[in-house]
Amino acid sequence: MYLELNPDEHLYIQIYESIKNKIISGEISEGFKLPSIRALSGECLVSKNTVSNAYYQLEIEGYISAIEKVGFFVNKTDHLVQLPSQTDALPTTQISPIYNFSYSGVDSSSFPFSIWKRVFRETIDYDETLLKQGDPKGLYELRNSIANYLYNSRGIQTTADDIIISAGTEHLFYLLRRLFNSDTVYGFEDPGYAWGNEFFTYDIEHCSAIPLDDSGIRVDELVKSNVDICLVTPAHQFPTGIVMTTSRRYELLNWAKSGRYIIEDDYDGDFKFSGRPTPSLKSIDSNDSVIYMGSFSKCLTPALRISYMILPKDLMQIYNEAFSGFGCPCSVFIQSALSKFIKDGYFEKHINRMRQLYSKKHMKMLSLLKGIKGIKVQEPHSGTSFSVEVDTELNSNEFAKLALKHGVGITPVDRFSHNGVKRNMYLLGFTGMDTSDIETGLQILDDIISKKRRI
Amino acid sequence: MYLELNPDEHLYIQIYESIKNKIISGEISEGFKLPSIRALSGECLVSKNTVSNAYYQLEIEGYISAIEKVGFFVNKTDHLVQLPSQTDALPTTQISPIYNFSYSGVDSSSFPFSIWKRVFRETIDYDETLLKQGDPKGLYELRNSIANYLYNSRGIQTTADDIIISAGTEHLFYLLRRLFNSDTVYGFEDPGYAWGNEFFTYDIEHCSAIPLDDSGIRVDELVKSNVDICLVTPAHQFPTGIVMTTSRRYELLNWAKSGRYIIEDDYDGDFKFSGRPTPSLKSIDSNDSVIYMGSFSKCLTPALRISYMILPKDLMQIYNEAFSGFGCPCSVFIQSALSKFIKDGYFEKHINRMRQLYSKKHMKMLSLLKGIKGIKVQEPHSGTSFSVEVDTELNSNEFAKLALKHGVGITPVDRFSHNGVKRNMYLLGFTGMDTSDIETGLQILDDIISKKRRI
Repeated sequence: MYLELNPDEHLYIQIYESIKNKIISGEISEGFKLPSIRALSGECLVSKNTVSNAYYQLEIEGYISAIEKVGFFVNKTDHLVQLPSQTDALPTTQISPIYNFSYSGVDSSSFPFSIWKRVFRETIDYDETLLKQGDPKGLYELRNSIANYLYNSRGIQTTADDIIISAGTEHLFYLLRRLFNSDTVYGFEDPGYAWGNEFFTYDIEHCSAIPLDDSGIRVDELVKSNVDICLVTPAHQFPTGIVMTTSRRYELLNWAKSGRYIIEDDYDGDFKFSGRPTPSLKSIDSNDSVIYMGSFSKCLTPALRISYMILPKDLMQIYNEAFSGFGCPCSVFIQSALSKFIKDGYFEKHINRMRQLYSKKHMKMLSLLKGIKGIKVQEPHSGTSFSVEVDTELNSNEFAKLALKHGVGITPVDRFSHNGVKRNMYLLGFTGMDTSDIETGLQILDDIISKKRRI
Repeated sequence: MYLELNPDEHLYIQIYESIKNKIISGEISEGFKLPSIRALSGECLVSKNTVSNAYYQLEIEGYISAIEKVGFFVNKTDHLVQLPSQTDALPTTQISPIYNFSYSGVDSSSFPFSIWKRVFRETIDYDETLLKQGDPKGLYELRNSIANYLYNSRGIQTTADDIIISAGTEHLFYLLRRLFNSDTVYGFEDPGYAWGNEFFTYDIEHCSAIPLDDSGIRVDELVKSNVDICLVTPAHQFPTGIVMTTSRRYELLNWAKSGRYIIEDDYDGDFKFSGRPTPSLKSIDSNDSVIYMGSFSKCLTPALRISYMILPKDLMQIYNEAFSGFGCPCSVFIQSALSKFIKDGYFEKHINRMRQLYSKKHMKMLSLLKGIKGIKVQEPHSGTSFSVEVDTELNSNEFAKLALKHGVGITPVDRFSHNGVKRNMYLLGFTGMDTSDIETGLQILDDIISKKRRI
């Protein structure tokens, strides 16, 4: 058997590859007896160990069989997987804006890539638990870290046992729906993100749109409705940015007292840059009627795809009975790594850095927006994005398209509206942009509004 | 300001930590002016750079502010996150068997931990796409790799565009349910895993139990039913292990021709150790009525929590319209790493190794099981687990409990049965066990059956 070997590369791999190729190509076939280890090592002028390693590799992958005291024989191989190298086909791409005021961006230059490499290196190690599907409610250690974090950051007293980990708000909401019967009525803020995602509202006869005022969701309208569970975003209402006042929070909690539930989505509660601090609903809920939802998408990265909720005791009991067979959708790899990231203190550092950084960007955005004549900021105390009114005769889709033509991405607020927002409102996020892109992007918007730039 | 420094550790970190602690403890408070960089460097006998680095770290985390040409001042810090170190509370544990014939185990000693470390190290790098939520259908590259794999391993011709990635069979099934209207009737094999998981069958009036015979699901019974979509496990029926015969496959495909769908769950299709090779339903489906489901749980590890399905063209069109707002539950980190693992050839090697290894364990199990007088193997050609009948007067729960008392974990088949399996059947997996544990575990079962061991 002739094998061509290159002395500069691993010899056993070359022997393994050469014989494997001869088997795959059919040059040697089922039943063929390979040279003995001694014979091949003499022929190739390599050590017996080298040949032995190559034969071992071929054997464990199923290409050959060893018969003791007889020799090595080629197996039938049509059942073996052989993946040809792939051509890198690419999907058809969409135009993406150069200056993207996306409300879901994160600052990529601040993401601790090297720390994550280290965390994964230290997490992935021979460990049986890493090869199991894990707890349906999510990794216990991680739930424990989250409970600890919520106490310190949001004043919420909770334990690992009250927390369920999942993969995004939609998935949490899906679990919730399964806990209630099918004629339960869900209330959503209008405008609110639920109206922009068919997932929340597909069962439209069981959904109710509740209007807002400057203090947040209108509890007087909620009282008049037949809503059983109401989803709110009190920290910064999405998409208007309105901070729910403390008195409105108590009104809302009061509404829930008669067997109703509030879902508090605290999606950017970590980021409060101005105005008076307001407590989370969950932290002032004495009646155990608040379902609290949080996520690592804003404060770390949406790429982790980890979100969580705290369930009231009565609902957790139903969950424990009904969801025994439903696995947590998050990889144990990711959950372990995130748990370590928090435990080793990196998360604390990261979130404090991000608060500083985003606070500076927030100030920059606000001062620039105030300088644009045709733009009115709806809520200066908003969190990670601004909702603005634009003075233009174009409708919201036309204006957003025109902006995109000039490289600027903005989101019309009426995408999240059910009963129709009359005014010309847009959502402008800033967390994923650097300062100079914020400047240029807003300058372009200014030019479009003042008609210095046309189609 | 007195700082105690240890010359053997990073000096800037010590300065940063000392000042941070003074701020947190309240020793120095809001408005306190820190010594200048020059002054502190002289005082501590360290370079100005060292002090400057420490101040920079304190500044970006929000503990202090720099005012140009004036100095460094302590900020108000009650808004900063400070996570105390956690006590490692542990959840209450269940008794886990020493000899666990679990049907969902994988061989942990063969899992390539060091390759995964490397793959993560090489994947996680400054890359904007890693910080985004990603394609709702899953990472394009990974879908492309899966299409390539299915063609080579299972004879299925498909493309990335036809594939949706999700996090477990339940999640895939959930997506499917949303594509059909609410009066659709689902057929499940009886026994079958759906009957063991309330998730599949909670809407019981829209579920139908279809019995089996030795060739697989009974299509004559299916024809008599009002089922619209039927879930089957043709490679090795779960839990009986029966391989669906080729003629039964064509009968089933024929049933689907009039606008019905078949869900083919190929959960262990990668592992066929004996008997004639049978094509996947999807590969012989000329009518585009098969929804194919696969996963990396058996062939790699359930810890990844990655599964996927191929949708027929008509269903994919509905999906594209209905699920625009529903994010893929899998972390982009995991998807990128898995894609690289496949692309770099590690998956091919791994699966061939596992086939060899599991094939040996399969042979071992079969020969040992045949030697036990009170045990009858139902299907010798089964895949990664055996379904066996045990000669005992105990009922299945009693017998499983008794086995557990002696350290052996087995699963009663009637857990997956709807209309009741009369016989005393158990599911015995072997993929997660080493050979000596298989021997000991089966010896214990033998002793229990022959009453050498009692309670």
